[in-house]
Amino acid sequence: MEKNIRVGIVGYGNLGRGVETAIEKNPDMSLVGVFTRRDPNSLQTASDASVYSYDSIKAFQNDIDVMILCGGSATDLPEMTPEIVSMFNIVDSFDNHSKIPDHFATVNKAAVGANKIGVISVGWDPGLFSMNRLLGEVVLPEGDTFTFWGEGLSQGHSDAVRRISGVKKAVQYTVPIEEILEDARKGIGADLSSAERHKRVCYVVADETEQSRIEQEIKTMPDYFEPYDTTVHFISEDEFSANHQKMKHGGVVIRNGNTSADNKETVEFSLNLDSNPEFTASVLVAYARAAYRLNQEGGHGAKTAFDIPLAYLTPKSHEEILKNLL
Amino acid sequence: MEKNIRVGIVGYGNLGRGVETAIEKNPDMSLVGVFTRRDPNSLQTASDASVYSYDSIKAFQNDIDVMILCGGSATDLPEMTPEIVSMFNIVDSFDNHSKIPDHFATVNKAAVGANKIGVISVGWDPGLFSMNRLLGEVVLPEGDTFTFWGEGLSQGHSDAVRRISGVKKAVQYTVPIEEILEDARKGIGADLSSAERHKRVCYVVADETEQSRIEQEIKTMPDYFEPYDTTVHFISEDEFSANHQKMKHGGVVIRNGNTSADNKETVEFSLNLDSNPEFTASVLVAYARAAYRLNQEGGHGAKTAFDIPLAYLTPKSHEEILKNLL
Repeated sequence: MEKNIRVGIVGYGNLGRGVETAIEKNPDMSLVGVFTRRDPNSLQTASDASVYSYDSIKAFQNDIDVMILCGGSATDLPEMTPEIVSMFNIVDSFDNHSKIPDHFATVNKAAVGANKIGVISVGWDPGLFSMNRLLGEVVLPEGDTFTFWGEGLSQGHSDAVRRISGVKKAVQYTVPIEEILEDARKGIGADLSSAERHKRVCYVVADETEQSRIEQEIKTMPDYFEPYDTTVHFISEDEFSANHQKMKHGGVVIRNGNTSADNKETVEFSLNLDSNPEFTASVLVAYARAAYRLNQEGGHGAKTAFDIPLAYLTPKSHEEILKNLL
Repeated sequence: MEKNIRVGIVGYGNLGRGVETAIEKNPDMSLVGVFTRRDPNSLQTASDASVYSYDSIKAFQNDIDVMILCGGSATDLPEMTPEIVSMFNIVDSFDNHSKIPDHFATVNKAAVGANKIGVISVGWDPGLFSMNRLLGEVVLPEGDTFTFWGEGLSQGHSDAVRRISGVKKAVQYTVPIEEILEDARKGIGADLSSAERHKRVCYVVADETEQSRIEQEIKTMPDYFEPYDTTVHFISEDEFSANHQKMKHGGVVIRNGNTSADNKETVEFSLNLDSNPEFTASVLVAYARAAYRLNQEGGHGAKTAFDIPLAYLTPKSHEEILKNLL
């Protein structure tokens, strides 16, 4: 297959490295380079891809078809996405749910003005989970939707535990409560809060003398832990290194509803991920293909996972997908 | 919400009745009538909807926005869909997988000529399962896809059992083999055939003197049962009436693949349905909305679940879905 889609990566953290790996698995794509705000000479990429300064990005307009933006949602993407979509087709993983409408509006304005496509908020939540929330409600208009996250590593909560004095190493996993998940499959518990549906499990390395105070501080930390069922396990450095290095995540979207008085139907979509950033990166890369194609057809403006037909995500021809996948 | 989408149903079997029920659950739709090849006076609809002769269909071109075609894939739809799409936007559930490309081509020609939209092959397989097969492969290009059907009632296999002499009543359920399903979640067993991944379980009502012969005839029936692990349970008429009247079905699509050497990711989509026809009908109705909208925007031609953005399926505004579902 011809490598006709030329991709750039902006930002080289876990997500950017995941995109680099994912591009190699897609036969119609090539990686032109990584753009960074750090000193380009300080960065060695895994695939030996070239590294360029973020400031030089404009010079690549004839060489790159889609930029995949791998910055954070808190401060990077709100500025970066509109700026870059005025020069390139882009894909981002903006995941600050409450600010998505604003982000969409800003990106749309810039993208329309530049005749580019800006695919925002793809990944798995927002992204694949959003698609399943929408799909669940349209096929079962009378029913309830349940989203569970985990079992998965939460970066924010792990950081919060690590800030407690005496904590040497720590991770926090968000875990759906099994009985509540089983109930959801039967349509029970739609009114429960996130805190009632999930528990928090921490693995912490700390000196024995500090452990009871640390456990207390974790469990009473407001917002992060306080309303949740929280368990704290103190483990050795060795056990930590052996079992708690991966950025596992996942979750479930369930739609449960009746099609008539007697008949209940359940739709369930679940993810079980060894690497949250690598999987998110793989989704971004599939949507980069869509961004390229939509723009090739003359499309422009902001798009989300709701706005793009699935056929745009695959390198296969329409004939092939009708024959082998439909 | 204004009921601005006027729908007609062609064919009034289990699927047609399911569509009738589903339309009531969608606030933007109204049912204009049911069209039948039988004597319209012989048909009483559940919702008291009007019944018209199939031959009068052309007269309704100004009154109906979308026709939902509820005929069978073997003989009805190959003729009916191209014929009706030359007058109306349509949705069908054509599910003869090997003939989908031909059906698409025929419907596309007629739909383009008439400036109508023909959405074909929606339901759950083909349909939602197809979407998940495509999505799985694009997000995990290196991996395997597994489709399991059931536990579910198979109409064709139940009919085959009922044709055996001495069988008074019978149903056949297709059941995924649990260990193989568990293996699939780990990415094992992609080379297994459908017969190796499913078993067949029959519930039969018959006189005791006939049972051993009937069991033998079922288990050795070529194609239908012969390569499969088949179990036959003989039950009473009462147990049959109490427990085997529903048209339950469902299944699972699993994609399992690596994003890098160390990291395996699993995507799973599953359905657990009390009523196969009612659920299929609900999917058809959601796509009727899409057919209407695409045509309102000037679109025409054949479409599948791969070709339609999810946003077209919901009665909610784009602002609302960005805010509440993304």
